[in-house]
Amino acid sequence: MEIKVTENILSKNDQIALETTKLLAEKKIYCINMMSSPGSGKTTILERTIPAIMDKIRVGVIEGDVATHIDAERIEKFGIPTVQITTDKFGGACHLSAKMIADVIEKLPLDELDFVVIENVGNLICPAGFKVGSNADVVVQSLAEGVEKPLKYPVMFHKCELALINKIDLEEALEFDTDTLEENIRKVNPKIRVMKLSARTGEGFEQWIEWIKEKVG
Amino acid sequence: MEIKVTENILSKNDQIALETTKLLAEKKIYCINMMSSPGSGKTTILERTIPAIMDKIRVGVIEGDVATHIDAERIEKFGIPTVQITTDKFGGACHLSAKMIADVIEKLPLDELDFVVIENVGNLICPAGFKVGSNADVVVQSLAEGVEKPLKYPVMFHKCELALINKIDLEEALEFDTDTLEENIRKVNPKIRVMKLSARTGEGFEQWIEWIKEKVG
Repeated sequence: MEIKVTENILSKNDQIALETTKLLAEKKIYCINMMSSPGSGKTTILERTIPAIMDKIRVGVIEGDVATHIDAERIEKFGIPTVQITTDKFGGACHLSAKMIADVIEKLPLDELDFVVIENVGNLICPAGFKVGSNADVVVQSLAEGVEKPLKYPVMFHKCELALINKIDLEEALEFDTDTLEENIRKVNPKIRVMKLSARTGEGFEQWIEWIKEKVG
Repeated sequence: MEIKVTENILSKNDQIALETTKLLAEKKIYCINMMSSPGSGKTTILERTIPAIMDKIRVGVIEGDVATHIDAERIEKFGIPTVQITTDKFGGACHLSAKMIADVIEKLPLDELDFVVIENVGNLICPAGFKVGSNADVVVQSLAEGVEKPLKYPVMFHKCELALINKIDLEEALEFDTDTLEENIRKVNPKIRVMKLSARTGEGFEQWIEWIKEKVG
């Protein structure tokens, strides 16, 4: 009986996510769901990505956080449509649900957008369990989190089609073994695409920008 | 009705946690629950802490992870009693519950211990909602996670009596404003004790070791 309730909740989430996917398809919008631990650098990646694409791609952002509007304020400064969801209204929920997205997606001017980025709540576990209606799921991991994270949090890395390894500028300071991290990501998900970059220095951003242009294009 | 169910579940968790607290008190054991984002350095802190205290304090560790026994293996090498909980058995649960702890606590030789460390699943949100029976909750945040994390994840920082700011050896490489991080922690919890340390270099460990000795002694 308990299992049945869980199944119903999940399938209701997936139904709502599907409606969002359909709406975005109608509007010819490509949508990604960015997920990671707290502090892996999702917002900083967006701060470097948006100015690099906004002359050709009309982008909107949905920011998810437990509390504060800090991230939305960092994105709004580019003058692009931004919506903040704070999950403290939902009891401090640890992930964005399809309903939370569906409830706010039309606050974005969908007729005037090509690309929507959902920045999920910082959490390497729970968001992997909830579809939000995106076309692609992207996981960000920073070097500072250690090489074994994909093995310890396999569901997230298994779910995503792209992994961004961020903060490669810290490789030397951390004496970090980036190759082993990449191997561990592929152990969990052999099909995943992996890109190494630094949101601080801009290193490695070409392939990520190229990926966005191909997907949205 | 939905709210009622939630309340019952939480109160059952708290009842089980209380039983664990009583059992530990009978055994004269002090217990801490260490929580943080993935990769903040909980296990590395323990790897430096255990050899510094194990001649005077008999310590046991319960490791919580979604998957893998990597952390338990890192602790077992000190020859101390270690139990690994992997929550993938529980559908990849994003936190340790009181029941998970109660089910394994007696696998530790409680009559031969003074101090038990529970290293929770790497997650800055969900573990804050579940008592496990510990005497003190400790949050670890690394510099690499950014200054705004206490504001964005207030429940965790509000719940804990001690915050360890880890990876202070990266202050220069990250051009990090540690004072602002400390201020943000105190904004959320004015009573919290804050210590800055580096598990990599050992800097700042004296006060943390002293804190453990006072609490356990």
